[in-house]
Amino acid sequence: MARSQISPLAISLGDPAGIGPEVIAKCWDHRSQFGLPPFVAIGDGHSIAAVWDGPIEVVEDPRQADAAFDHALPLIQVSSAQEDVPGHPSVAGAHCSLDSLELAVGLARSGSASAVVTGPVSKEQLYGIGFQHPGQTEFVAERCGISPGNVVMMLAGATLRTVPVTTHLSLRDVPDRLTSALIESRGRATLRGLQRNFGIAEPRLAVAALNPHAGEGGNLGREEIEIIEPAIAALAAEGWRVTGPLPADTMFHARARSAYDAALCMYHDQALIPIKAIHFEDAVNVTLGLPIVRTAPDHGTAFDIAGRDRADARPMAAAIRMAAECSFIRAESA
Amino acid sequence: MARSQISPLAISLGDPAGIGPEVIAKCWDHRSQFGLPPFVAIGDGHSIAAVWDGPIEVVEDPRQADAAFDHALPLIQVSSAQEDVPGHPSVAGAHCSLDSLELAVGLARSGSASAVVTGPVSKEQLYGIGFQHPGQTEFVAERCGISPGNVVMMLAGATLRTVPVTTHLSLRDVPDRLTSALIESRGRATLRGLQRNFGIAEPRLAVAALNPHAGEGGNLGREEIEIIEPAIAALAAEGWRVTGPLPADTMFHARARSAYDAALCMYHDQALIPIKAIHFEDAVNVTLGLPIVRTAPDHGTAFDIAGRDRADARPMAAAIRMAAECSFIRAESA
Repeated sequence: MARSQISPLAISLGDPAGIGPEVIAKCWDHRSQFGLPPFVAIGDGHSIAAVWDGPIEVVEDPRQADAAFDHALPLIQVSSAQEDVPGHPSVAGAHCSLDSLELAVGLARSGSASAVVTGPVSKEQLYGIGFQHPGQTEFVAERCGISPGNVVMMLAGATLRTVPVTTHLSLRDVPDRLTSALIESRGRATLRGLQRNFGIAEPRLAVAALNPHAGEGGNLGREEIEIIEPAIAALAAEGWRVTGPLPADTMFHARARSAYDAALCMYHDQALIPIKAIHFEDAVNVTLGLPIVRTAPDHGTAFDIAGRDRADARPMAAAIRMAAECSFIRAESA
Repeated sequence: MARSQISPLAISLGDPAGIGPEVIAKCWDHRSQFGLPPFVAIGDGHSIAAVWDGPIEVVEDPRQADAAFDHALPLIQVSSAQEDVPGHPSVAGAHCSLDSLELAVGLARSGSASAVVTGPVSKEQLYGIGFQHPGQTEFVAERCGISPGNVVMMLAGATLRTVPVTTHLSLRDVPDRLTSALIESRGRATLRGLQRNFGIAEPRLAVAALNPHAGEGGNLGREEIEIIEPAIAALAAEGWRVTGPLPADTMFHARARSAYDAALCMYHDQALIPIKAIHFEDAVNVTLGLPIVRTAPDHGTAFDIAGRDRADARPMAAAIRMAAECSFIRAESA
């Protein structure tokens, strides 16, 4: 089946003063080299024109993007109340980034776009205009009618996928936040996501231990015995292929990685240290548990380098490629 | 200065029933390919003969090893009270591994050997014969007249060196164990070790944060502000080049690693996840703060595969090479 049989991807530009417009334009420039399928940018065209002098074609609908994509960057215009300057975020820009995100999600929900790739937004700016969610992921979940507690963030690179069970909390608070139910739920969502988004019929999940040496039989902490092992047993009882708890330091080298499809990690840095050490340029944030495919590059707005032609477009290209792969797999199995 | 001007290295075989004898013999077999300088094995020759049919030459003194090394594996015999069977550790073997370690350290202390490389021992077996130290490192420190609190374990690979501030304790206990004084002391020992063992005149130390996103200005934990930053300031005030606290997830990719000579990490897995993900085959355990050079491969006895010709000798080869490099640098600057 040809890749062109999926609809174009909808890519929100993110904050117009960040590096989103630049890396998305660069992705169109290098669409052949990066191996990218047709996509449509969603946001304020001025923010692209401010940092890029290539051709833009304004379209009304993602379906028009297929025809335009060969000769111009297709754009669905979401006007900002002011022309944003790269590196100088504004209230108008924050509203524009949120409107663009909302439109992109709507297009994917309706089937006009095959997936959503989200450009980087500024949480500080969004909080300033009354945004109530911890991040874009939770907003997308809500717009899809899914409880944020049921979606999981996966970081995916070519040779490693990791999912953190807990995310933005201090290390001190991690042990008490972990419960068997939470690990089970994150594990199940990860396994289903591996089936649905990655087409792995019998996915293998490796569960990391919390403590060094997996707790050494209880000598270095009892969370493995009391919390993690029961969760693994429960998932295994449902028929899933789950191993662990594994000592976290020996589960991320090349040979170890080949034994599983995703690693379920107990805390933020346990998941993000290995993925960024190994796949810094191509790790993609994939949201699992949604009715739509959503990916994002794993970087921020980088206001400090916006507008200087210094932003690396490879993470965005990887996010676009992965969104296309996942959409294709979902379309094939639908 | 030719490499041959340093004395041979003393390599303790470790537990005679583990993979130590096998990987040391394999290192001699591949001494040219691995680029290894002359060394002398210290332990029971029977444990080598049980797993290897190459030539062994018993010597009395490391100085005789230079002449023997071309045609045979030089060995200083430390007899075990029984012939150990690979994969089946014994009390006699544990005694032998400790005697070998003690002799190796003595030879390095006296200058007959230029460094000590320690083969893997079984802590369980050693505890069974009354060994009182947490591991070989502390035993070596004591034999050198150094308080174990003043030596630090560094994991060193070709592109990354990490040092854990805390080691074998549960993750839950890490935050309360961290103090500015401890971080300062470990940082200072690391910086001095980079000068002395690695010949880096003005070493650069990167200090990892404890919490995700380096605590986000206190929102995700206050240890960065209250404990880590003061320690960094104190080291900087002494003239050391120290940066941090850095978000741990973005400090281990290739470009980030090139900005420092060692990463000081707050807990075991924070130091060991990245080094083993990136340098699983060649990461070497180097003890800093000793009057002698001591390295070790970062693996255990692996009793389960001992005697089956399956053990990978590359970590031991890396440990021998690094011991030689460090000895050479120390000799040059002496």
